[in-house]
Amino acid sequence: MAGGEFAFIEQLRCRLGKMASDVRLGIGDDAAWLDPAGRQLVATMDTLVAGRHFFPEVSPEDLAWKALAVNLSDLAAMGAEARWCLLSLALPWRAEGYGEWLEAFATGWSALADRHDVTLVGGDTVATDGPLTLSITALGLSGHGVMRREAARPGDVIWVTGTLGDAAAALDLALVERGQERRAVPCSAPRRDALEARRLRPTPRLEFGAAALAGGVLCAVDCSDGFLADLGHILKASGVHAQVALDALPLSPDLADLARTDPERLQRWPLTGGDDYELILCAAPALSTALQEAARSLSLRLTAVGSILPATPDARAAVTLTWRDESLSLPFSWGHVHAL
Amino acid sequence: MAGGEFAFIEQLRCRLGKMASDVRLGIGDDAAWLDPAGRQLVATMDTLVAGRHFFPEVSPEDLAWKALAVNLSDLAAMGAEARWCLLSLALPWRAEGYGEWLEAFATGWSALADRHDVTLVGGDTVATDGPLTLSITALGLSGHGVMRREAARPGDVIWVTGTLGDAAAALDLALVERGQERRAVPCSAPRRDALEARRLRPTPRLEFGAAALAGGVLCAVDCSDGFLADLGHILKASGVHAQVALDALPLSPDLADLARTDPERLQRWPLTGGDDYELILCAAPALSTALQEAARSLSLRLTAVGSILPATPDARAAVTLTWRDESLSLPFSWGHVHAL
Repeated sequence: MAGGEFAFIEQLRCRLGKMASDVRLGIGDDAAWLDPAGRQLVATMDTLVAGRHFFPEVSPEDLAWKALAVNLSDLAAMGAEARWCLLSLALPWRAEGYGEWLEAFATGWSALADRHDVTLVGGDTVATDGPLTLSITALGLSGHGVMRREAARPGDVIWVTGTLGDAAAALDLALVERGQERRAVPCSAPRRDALEARRLRPTPRLEFGAAALAGGVLCAVDCSDGFLADLGHILKASGVHAQVALDALPLSPDLADLARTDPERLQRWPLTGGDDYELILCAAPALSTALQEAARSLSLRLTAVGSILPATPDARAAVTLTWRDESLSLPFSWGHVHAL
Repeated sequence: MAGGEFAFIEQLRCRLGKMASDVRLGIGDDAAWLDPAGRQLVATMDTLVAGRHFFPEVSPEDLAWKALAVNLSDLAAMGAEARWCLLSLALPWRAEGYGEWLEAFATGWSALADRHDVTLVGGDTVATDGPLTLSITALGLSGHGVMRREAARPGDVIWVTGTLGDAAAALDLALVERGQERRAVPCSAPRRDALEARRLRPTPRLEFGAAALAGGVLCAVDCSDGFLADLGHILKASGVHAQVALDALPLSPDLADLARTDPERLQRWPLTGGDDYELILCAAPALSTALQEAARSLSLRLTAVGSILPATPDARAAVTLTWRDESLSLPFSWGHVHAL
């Protein structure tokens, strides 16, 4: 990209490379120089490819928000405070003349980054003969440990923030509109827009993750692959089983209405849909009141959806699903969810 | 990629996710949890795209080495100690069945990572409809500042590690072999192999970068875009000019022999070829003896190639090139090097 690359990076630096007291040197040198101030580092990296992880025609504003959000959500699941990001853009066109695209991208990025005081401190822009590809590394700090997948214990309550399944329903609606999904989803325009907003602009639960960690919660993941798959990560890492009440899963009013006529989707969207970027936490019952209080102070919905059980070798599956207190015999287990 | 992705990541974790005392939690959770032990953080990110930054048929061993090396070289230019990496792979094929490719990739990665005690702590693997794309974030630590581009001062000596132009010559040889460059480069097979090794497996100068910083050097960059372009970054950031003795540029015996019959290439390869991953440092003359001693103790060639001058508004170019102490009137300046 040569000359154009430098102009592109300069524009990126001007728009997003704002100063912060813990950024000693940001965009523009061989590397960024950052001050963890004695705290521990939490680091994650996610890549999004056009046509795989987002529709190629998505607006640059929404794309920037989502690419940043999925990374910040990983930091939230650890209980870390988000501080810095590096952004790599592989662009399928010459960087020259894409000032407008970059301006819009920067607007969407800032809308989320400023909310959490996250600074862009470095990255790379390259040309590609393939689809637009974004890699983001998010760096956070933690003063007192992290929440881990392997820390669930029998007796723990399983909590979920926000609501599940909205993004998956919105994706189905988008696929119908694009003619890639034949089975129609009857849905009003305002409802469609509400669900689509959840798909395009997920909310990383950074404040709640930090509050949960500070309150003594040891185990969390973010819900990106789908509730059952992500809970499965916890169960596998912790060597435990779980019981989950299907009728307790938190649904938005929009999703509940939409799914009322379609029990199959009512199960699929919240259980295996993915792209929720909510947190799943496992915590001892003694922490319940404090957790609910923390959620209330953030105006965040928090729902107990089940409990952690000891692993029993003869269990049919790691997750027992119940509906109105009756066990369901569905073929759900972490090994199978991707086949659904 | 679903199920295959998890197997791929597990293989990556087993091969490369080794334990280190400052890695509290590596590959396998939402994010890595790392201990900077009170030091400051240095972070860089580079992306390589098949067909743009490497030939698609490059061996996975060499690809892994180079992708890691170009990132570690950025840390070397800051004087940081390399500690951790995150790796994102966008794969143009299904991850299933690529165990062999990954084994070879891991071998090449380890060959360099183990040398510098760098641990892979996270990343991502995704599928792409485009070319193989690698993004790497390298994280280093520094106890006493960093070397910066903007810190060159008039009177500083300009130093270069190793030799320049080998990779650029090897690239021309490869392009001739591929029929993409018509002008032949007469070259024996052993010489070709020596140059090709420099192109495929550059050596990040981490030990020397750290020694230079510890010894009081304030200014360095790594030489990736070409000597003149990278020196230009320093001059622009520091607001200074420079004089460089063309006849002092360090050439390998292989390159010197090869270029003897071709003065145009003799200038182009070391000056604007790029991909050297050597360090360019600017240091007060009082530091010269200590720097040379540090280089000697690492068996590293270190060459004084010029000096930093005050910026003069009427200069024809930011860099004055000399040959046997006579000024050359070539159209070199940082704004033009990419057009050569």
